[in-house]
Amino acid sequence: MPDMAVPRVVIVGGGFGGLNAARALRRAPLRVTLIDRRNHHLFQPLLYQVATAALNPSDIATPIRRILRRQENTEVVLAEVMGIDVPGKRVLLRDGVLPYDFLVIATGATHAYFGHDEWAEHAPGLKTIEDAIEIRRRVLLSYEAAEREPDAARREEWLTFVVVGGGPTGVELAGALVEIARHVLARDFRRIDPRTARVVLVEAGPRILPAYAPELSEKATARLRRMGCEVLLGTPVTQVGAGGVTAGERRIGSRCVIWAAGVAPSPIARSLGVPLDRVGRVKVDPDLSVPGAPEVFVIGDLAAVNDPQGRPIPGLAQPAIQGGRHAARQILRTLRGEPREPFRYRDKGTLATIGRNAAVAEIGRLKTEGFFAWLLWLLVHIFMLIGFRNRVLVLAEWAWTYLRYERGARLITGEVHELLAGTEAPRSGSRERSAAESGRG
Amino acid sequence: MPDMAVPRVVIVGGGFGGLNAARALRRAPLRVTLIDRRNHHLFQPLLYQVATAALNPSDIATPIRRILRRQENTEVVLAEVMGIDVPGKRVLLRDGVLPYDFLVIATGATHAYFGHDEWAEHAPGLKTIEDAIEIRRRVLLSYEAAEREPDAARREEWLTFVVVGGGPTGVELAGALVEIARHVLARDFRRIDPRTARVVLVEAGPRILPAYAPELSEKATARLRRMGCEVLLGTPVTQVGAGGVTAGERRIGSRCVIWAAGVAPSPIARSLGVPLDRVGRVKVDPDLSVPGAPEVFVIGDLAAVNDPQGRPIPGLAQPAIQGGRHAARQILRTLRGEPREPFRYRDKGTLATIGRNAAVAEIGRLKTEGFFAWLLWLLVHIFMLIGFRNRVLVLAEWAWTYLRYERGARLITGEVHELLAGTEAPRSGSRERSAAESGRG
Repeated sequence: MPDMAVPRVVIVGGGFGGLNAARALRRAPLRVTLIDRRNHHLFQPLLYQVATAALNPSDIATPIRRILRRQENTEVVLAEVMGIDVPGKRVLLRDGVLPYDFLVIATGATHAYFGHDEWAEHAPGLKTIEDAIEIRRRVLLSYEAAEREPDAARREEWLTFVVVGGGPTGVELAGALVEIARHVLARDFRRIDPRTARVVLVEAGPRILPAYAPELSEKATARLRRMGCEVLLGTPVTQVGAGGVTAGERRIGSRCVIWAAGVAPSPIARSLGVPLDRVGRVKVDPDLSVPGAPEVFVIGDLAAVNDPQGRPIPGLAQPAIQGGRHAARQILRTLRGEPREPFRYRDKGTLATIGRNAAVAEIGRLKTEGFFAWLLWLLVHIFMLIGFRNRVLVLAEWAWTYLRYERGARLITGEVHELLAGTEAPRSGSRERSAAESGRG
Repeated sequence: MPDMAVPRVVIVGGGFGGLNAARALRRAPLRVTLIDRRNHHLFQPLLYQVATAALNPSDIATPIRRILRRQENTEVVLAEVMGIDVPGKRVLLRDGVLPYDFLVIATGATHAYFGHDEWAEHAPGLKTIEDAIEIRRRVLLSYEAAEREPDAARREEWLTFVVVGGGPTGVELAGALVEIARHVLARDFRRIDPRTARVVLVEAGPRILPAYAPELSEKATARLRRMGCEVLLGTPVTQVGAGGVTAGERRIGSRCVIWAAGVAPSPIARSLGVPLDRVGRVKVDPDLSVPGAPEVFVIGDLAAVNDPQGRPIPGLAQPAIQGGRHAARQILRTLRGEPREPFRYRDKGTLATIGRNAAVAEIGRLKTEGFFAWLLWLLVHIFMLIGFRNRVLVLAEWAWTYLRYERGARLITGEVHELLAGTEAPRSGSRERSAAESGRG
């Protein structure tokens, strides 16, 4: 039986924040419970590579249980958290309750459609492995449907890919989609030429990569356009449907729209009963604890935190990692009777890829774009991956992708006829016309 | 426009048979169309390794389009075939028709539950990538549920894995499940000891691996038992439900039953309007064509063919590969005005793994079991894999699995709470009892 006198730390969420909080407590005289509704930690910075068939799901997903298996004071529970009972110091699960002495909430963010939840069906976002597999499926099926579509206008819709949102995920997705069209699939079809596919990146603000220096945004825009990607700036999307999007004044016909525009904090924040900021993040105290509940910490994307210059900290891996470690340190200080410290975010720099041989990097005063930034991006991401196995396999997949212009994970799973049913019947069709030639007989 | 005077060969199915038929026609003056309802060719002999988390889906699945992309006379169509109109020489698709001059049917087999289709829900079979992912999910979730289950008897049910059917797939699955329990997961849990898990292989006939020599069946049985697998022989399964199976006289409580017992030919056979054998395979002429329709060939698992000794040819990769090449050759002979040849199956031997360092092999008169057979199994399967990339990655994954007793693809996708909801509420539960300690609060 576990010793009930030992304080219990519950961590909700096995992302960068939660996992680093747990690891930082590995030698502490505590009972640590990490709860997640998935069995795996996901390396989100490379999720777009699963969505674009360059990597396998398991290359970037590792069982949380495996990562923490040598950590004797920690158990991992697969469960869904419905809310927090702050006065009762209990986590409310879908099928139970879990008492805590200290709580670290690291449940991150999900997609936000700015009040248009009906857009979700037509424009999936990219937060989970399942999302990535669904996007990969839609992208690959669009080419299959185009190959079968006899009507030129409709074929063009199948061959138009719209990415909404010019943050790092949108830029990386758009770059990868252009490469798939121009190189990977170039010779695989008989009736269509994938190189004629359109990839459109739509950004509502005045520039892509708004968290970066303006000159890097410009360079990234120029690079994307040189690659063959259309970049629309200052163009808010006002409508999303089965047939495409309305972006600014124009209508873009597309059967494959991907949402990379907005994220919203996990709804668990509301159950805390404390003030939230405009987008729904918890207004934490300087030590990342919840006002009035010093035993509860909120870290990562769910916490509204500013950097020393008063600018909000972006929703990236580094702030979550540092937040997790900070929360763990404050728990240990509290147990030793020491005062809390304020959280200070150390910006280690940001990186985003645009495509083969191209990335942007901003590290302190260094701002660079091109091959060097791309190499840096590769090294940093290989280094950050959890597990030797993943590093080796991801390097092997990247080498393959690089050398052969080939993407190894071009797998469509699930029943295909439902999505293909979207192919329209030709206006005139003789019964003898073949399906392969006409889409429908 | 394609030249309509060129004869059109339609191949239905992109498995071993269909793919080899298409490849054998690569230089022929024909229009070849390969239809499959999936975008990928699946290397089925290694599918059980996806189900047991050793390999990734895309390690053994390659886009058919990619395999055939240099073959100028061939197009690949993603479509679902509903039947064949033999007199009209047309393939009936879900959404169209496709005329042919020659047809090769290579749609293979699916699971059969001996008239008990209601068992499918509780005992998934293993034929597709989706099946493998579902089985992987059930196996991994069983351990998660056991970790949360307070009731000892129910916990034991979660930790009992039943494999129905002692053919190669059943034997390979059972061996891999034992390894997962004894080695891979051994240290990952806090409340259960995965090494106490039971793996039961149930075979209705008098011996496992009935297609092999009796002494190899005996050796395989002994090896499985030494590893810790229960092997029940002469034990037909008479009932399958949510709580387990009835095998012979006994009831085995289990929450994870896998079906490897029976296969049935694809239902497309019935649409041909020709005599089928007892299990539903097409009684083909000696040249593998359909009686009365010499332009239609049936190959692989769907064809009822005997070897020169009059014994039925087993449903393995080799007969399908040889059948595909044979059908292609007969089409070319017919076009040249040459007479048809009868199909002669050349038995190149059979192999099956039992677990780490152990396999059985029967090649001509050579019958062997143990490390040498295992090494042979490894080499043959690496050699047969399509694509350099897959060979490298599968070798890397196997090396990892071998050296570290680790399985890299331990990913549970989809919503987990539905399956976990199967965890029963404890008989007595105080509200303060934690979910992690009690399964339900």
